[in-house]
Amino acid sequence: MGCQQTEMAATFPTLMDARALDDADPFPHRRHLFALPEDIIYLDGNSLGPLPAQTVARLEMTVNEEWGRSLIRSWNDHDWIGAPARVGNKIATLIGAQPGEVIVADSTSVNLYKILSALVRSQPTRSEIVTEKGNFPTDHHIAETIADMLGKRLVSVDAQDIPSAIGTQTAAAILCHVHYRTGARHDLGALTSSARQSGAPIIWDLSHSVGAVPLNLNADGAEYAVGCGYKYLNGGPGAPAFLYVARDLLPHLSSPISGWMGHTNPFAFEHSYRPASGIERFLAGTPPIISLMGLESGIDLMLQVDQDALFEKAQRLFSFFADLMAARCPEFRLISPAMPESRGSQIAFAHAQAAAIMSALISDGVVGDHRAPDVLRFGLTPLYLRFQDIWYAVDRLAAIMAAGTWQLPEHARIRRVT
Amino acid sequence: MGCQQTEMAATFPTLMDARALDDADPFPHRRHLFALPEDIIYLDGNSLGPLPAQTVARLEMTVNEEWGRSLIRSWNDHDWIGAPARVGNKIATLIGAQPGEVIVADSTSVNLYKILSALVRSQPTRSEIVTEKGNFPTDHHIAETIADMLGKRLVSVDAQDIPSAIGTQTAAAILCHVHYRTGARHDLGALTSSARQSGAPIIWDLSHSVGAVPLNLNADGAEYAVGCGYKYLNGGPGAPAFLYVARDLLPHLSSPISGWMGHTNPFAFEHSYRPASGIERFLAGTPPIISLMGLESGIDLMLQVDQDALFEKAQRLFSFFADLMAARCPEFRLISPAMPESRGSQIAFAHAQAAAIMSALISDGVVGDHRAPDVLRFGLTPLYLRFQDIWYAVDRLAAIMAAGTWQLPEHARIRRVT
Repeated sequence: MGCQQTEMAATFPTLMDARALDDADPFPHRRHLFALPEDIIYLDGNSLGPLPAQTVARLEMTVNEEWGRSLIRSWNDHDWIGAPARVGNKIATLIGAQPGEVIVADSTSVNLYKILSALVRSQPTRSEIVTEKGNFPTDHHIAETIADMLGKRLVSVDAQDIPSAIGTQTAAAILCHVHYRTGARHDLGALTSSARQSGAPIIWDLSHSVGAVPLNLNADGAEYAVGCGYKYLNGGPGAPAFLYVARDLLPHLSSPISGWMGHTNPFAFEHSYRPASGIERFLAGTPPIISLMGLESGIDLMLQVDQDALFEKAQRLFSFFADLMAARCPEFRLISPAMPESRGSQIAFAHAQAAAIMSALISDGVVGDHRAPDVLRFGLTPLYLRFQDIWYAVDRLAAIMAAGTWQLPEHARIRRVT
Repeated sequence: MGCQQTEMAATFPTLMDARALDDADPFPHRRHLFALPEDIIYLDGNSLGPLPAQTVARLEMTVNEEWGRSLIRSWNDHDWIGAPARVGNKIATLIGAQPGEVIVADSTSVNLYKILSALVRSQPTRSEIVTEKGNFPTDHHIAETIADMLGKRLVSVDAQDIPSAIGTQTAAAILCHVHYRTGARHDLGALTSSARQSGAPIIWDLSHSVGAVPLNLNADGAEYAVGCGYKYLNGGPGAPAFLYVARDLLPHLSSPISGWMGHTNPFAFEHSYRPASGIERFLAGTPPIISLMGLESGIDLMLQVDQDALFEKAQRLFSFFADLMAARCPEFRLISPAMPESRGSQIAFAHAQAAAIMSALISDGVVGDHRAPDVLRFGLTPLYLRFQDIWYAVDRLAAIMAAGTWQLPEHARIRRVT
């Protein structure tokens, strides 16, 4: 079993040590801002962020007042029609972009499709699309089909080979800023700068960095990006996604999905499509208002948080987690990068029995997730996680390994409560 | 102003007549199932359906219990992952399709794009896309851009010329079943049958007929359809849309937007895209769960309603409306078709001052809408509309016309309350 028990001589921090760290923390947690159940430790905010308390009231207002009472008039009276751009502008603040460079729309997959398809079409002489091997699947799938449809070559390379794979033959590259499994983070600024030298545009997928890692797209020269609303932004399950296009590039790029909401004047009901001059040209259909208001609430909360301080705290949680694991559960291999500048806000370990172990851990109230075949993944989200939560999580994992309960069928396990 | 006043000799039904019709109605209204404000008459359910009372509890459960308490586990424990197909199957029941032929996904615009793009690509020798002049703009816009991208000719014709415009050169036609302005309805079965003789597929946009007009896609031989969730289905603002592909055609058609949710096994996180064998292949990104649950609630309500009886009642409301207008406001020209089999569930009138008049009418608590330049449009939704509502609506319109209040600026109008 290999894991050390709490009862043994403590060569690792104790629960009291963890609580002392929490008490002294310069970035105190804000658990009270979230409707988190008391009986779980939630380490999956990188997959689905929890419910912000203020979102409950915001959604009640959207449903009962805006939809229920104001009905169709809410498109104007409550500015539903302006919501994709309004929330986009809030995201722009968060990611270091200007107003008018970000719009909330559709899903990450659809947004990737819109930008990649437009970029590849606009550069007929460039023959390749570059992706990273092991990218989040949707990024690869979208690129694969577009390459096939438009007669381009899809070049999938390992992380270290990306700079040399991008060149004058590259129509576009799709890269995940933070890797969904390991949490490895690319140097967005350096890669962008290097790609721009050969005129190759990169579409950055910020799904695993926005709301977790400080971003400054303008300063880094980023040209195109997409991102997800339901992870670190705490926007709710399936919250709409966003899309960023640097201001000076916008006039040159049109969405292939020319739906009416992207028209320069949707309510003129014109026969012919004339794309909006602004980022609204990347809208397609009617936005999912209720989900969108949930997203806005999550972003409003995130805008009150210093992103540098947030990330710095996440890194201290990371070190605490890694050190405890090394001391107590050394058979788990850390697969996240060692250096803070090379990682996001999650920690991942490899173990051959990852699936069964994570299942036992979840039964025991510690919610992380498993990615096949062998990865245990934990999100580190300082807004609602304390050092003591990390301590408990590792303590339970150690107990599960010592007792071998992960080998039992799920129904035979006894659920512990904090 | 030309409108006859209530005070004049009643050559038209009185309010008492209207109430008697309500009392004797074989299809009684179900206003109590909706959270409708008491002080308005809502004649815009063809644009945004009102809030079903049961949806309030459904959304509270989704937000507080499913998202708030069960968090990431809800993808399995509350079958979020199966929701697009589950709700799709419920829509299938409503539109005369089989389970597995309908999926809820994205917006109507994106769904149109997916099917039309796939159809045009799969028939390289066919050179034209057919639409109707004055179709809902998004249908035309989507077709326009696809035609341009794929080098096809876009043929826009008047309604009566559609049968002759569709032939062996047609890669696909996009037709709105019910016209968004006039309410004119195509003969879905006859047009489909005629188009199939030349092997030309029609994509039917059911946005203005689903939940209002009896549909039987399988019996009518329909091959492809899309539709909207937020109109007659009362799914909530920007509710996700749906997509139908006849079962035997499904294996031959793949979505160009190959997002991970369309993969045969999304959670295997495979590198290469393998589309699901079923209708799930038309999913792209993560569905907007909260908006989706609002849609399911609206559809659950609609499934309890006999669609033939619903439509029959809508036609009686139509006749009552048309007759009252002819008697009291003859300067408004009815532009909806005279015959029930040629129309949907709305009534439209033309008037040169339509915009100002509708604005005054809305200020007066009667909510219809205006479509430029000259159309006043009213949705006829028997679930929550009574004959007396129609009577009041026309009475107020007559009063506005007689007093000329539509010529006043909005702030100068006095709001009447029922």
